[in-house]
Amino acid sequence: MAGKVFFSVSMSLDGFTAPESMDGILATPEQRKQDPRLERWMAQWMELQQWIFPLRFFRENLKLGEGGEEGPDNDIARATFERTGASVMGKRMFDLGEPTWPEEAPFHTSVFVVTHQRRDPWERPGGTTFHFVNDGIRSALSQAREAAGDRDVRIAGGSETILEYLNAGLVDEFSITLSPVLFGNGTRLFDGVDASRIALEPVRSEPSPRVTHLAYAVHPR
Amino acid sequence: MAGKVFFSVSMSLDGFTAPESMDGILATPEQRKQDPRLERWMAQWMELQQWIFPLRFFRENLKLGEGGEEGPDNDIARATFERTGASVMGKRMFDLGEPTWPEEAPFHTSVFVVTHQRRDPWERPGGTTFHFVNDGIRSALSQAREAAGDRDVRIAGGSETILEYLNAGLVDEFSITLSPVLFGNGTRLFDGVDASRIALEPVRSEPSPRVTHLAYAVHPR
Repeated sequence: MAGKVFFSVSMSLDGFTAPESMDGILATPEQRKQDPRLERWMAQWMELQQWIFPLRFFRENLKLGEGGEEGPDNDIARATFERTGASVMGKRMFDLGEPTWPEEAPFHTSVFVVTHQRRDPWERPGGTTFHFVNDGIRSALSQAREAAGDRDVRIAGGSETILEYLNAGLVDEFSITLSPVLFGNGTRLFDGVDASRIALEPVRSEPSPRVTHLAYAVHPR
Repeated sequence: MAGKVFFSVSMSLDGFTAPESMDGILATPEQRKQDPRLERWMAQWMELQQWIFPLRFFRENLKLGEGGEEGPDNDIARATFERTGASVMGKRMFDLGEPTWPEEAPFHTSVFVVTHQRRDPWERPGGTTFHFVNDGIRSALSQAREAAGDRDVRIAGGSETILEYLNAGLVDEFSITLSPVLFGNGTRLFDGVDASRIALEPVRSEPSPRVTHLAYAVHPR
């Protein structure tokens, strides 16, 4: 159990990790095609994440073909992937991902989904297996630690799940890729954070031409 | 009128530039001494700004004595001061500052206060003169540009005033010193920003051991 527990997200300069809630937007495929909010949602999401799409690692991991950019952004994306021995995610992130991930889901490890839904493990080609955990965030983390071995456990998201782990004192460190974009509204990463109990120690701050990569260790206060 | 219009603030990682509102806390000196919120306000404020207090420039500018740290934080603080030919501030920032600035106020230029209060210019030793502008943000900016000559105009604060200028398309660039601290609540710099009209171009991202200095140019979109 030598691994650390971390999260790693892209954040807008005004603190958002996702555009306004997709609740109701993705309810059915028919609504999806007709809802003008989806276009705005996708445009904001693309802007937030635009640093990652040209990367060689991203293209490799999603089997989009040869080529792609190397450099500090690519090194950081690859290192984040390689340190991850298992992931934990919330039900909402899973529900958004299930219809959109490629058959070979991009995790390539065990993923523990915190949910009330009872469901058998869902094994995908390429090494990703989703396990559905019905008894809370500590149980999911404990199973993820076991599966990760010496590697780290990533709290993949969404923001609500990340915040539950952070406020419970279960996160050792986190990294934020700060994108040069303002959202104005959406899902705030730190909305509801128990700031009185969390001290941050800067670990890394690495600029690239597109974004700034920040990393902090979390300490109790 | 070659100068630029900018703002420069310290921001918590969760997007706050000030702890919860001081409204009612600083109403009278008696309340001030008795209100436990003041202690928490000061502690948060000090944490947010702690990168600046040890600096040689800060000590010089407030006449706190010799010494102090040099290096990238100091260079950036000094450069921000030196580029500033005049400042604009809101009434709330002025009201908070009036009883707390030293006699030799730390601006050393003309400062244009956007307010409904009619008042003669208030000249301080050391070159700071506060002018009280009663006809809106554009008039204050225009007077500040005139006073600044070739140098830049700083929208000093508070956040509400900064946002008015930003949303009006009157800000050319801004810098944010990102402090490794979470507030959880307070005054958000970008609360109410018109994100659909503002595009950001990263200009600088410079880490120091304590903080990360970010700078962006503002473009219409």
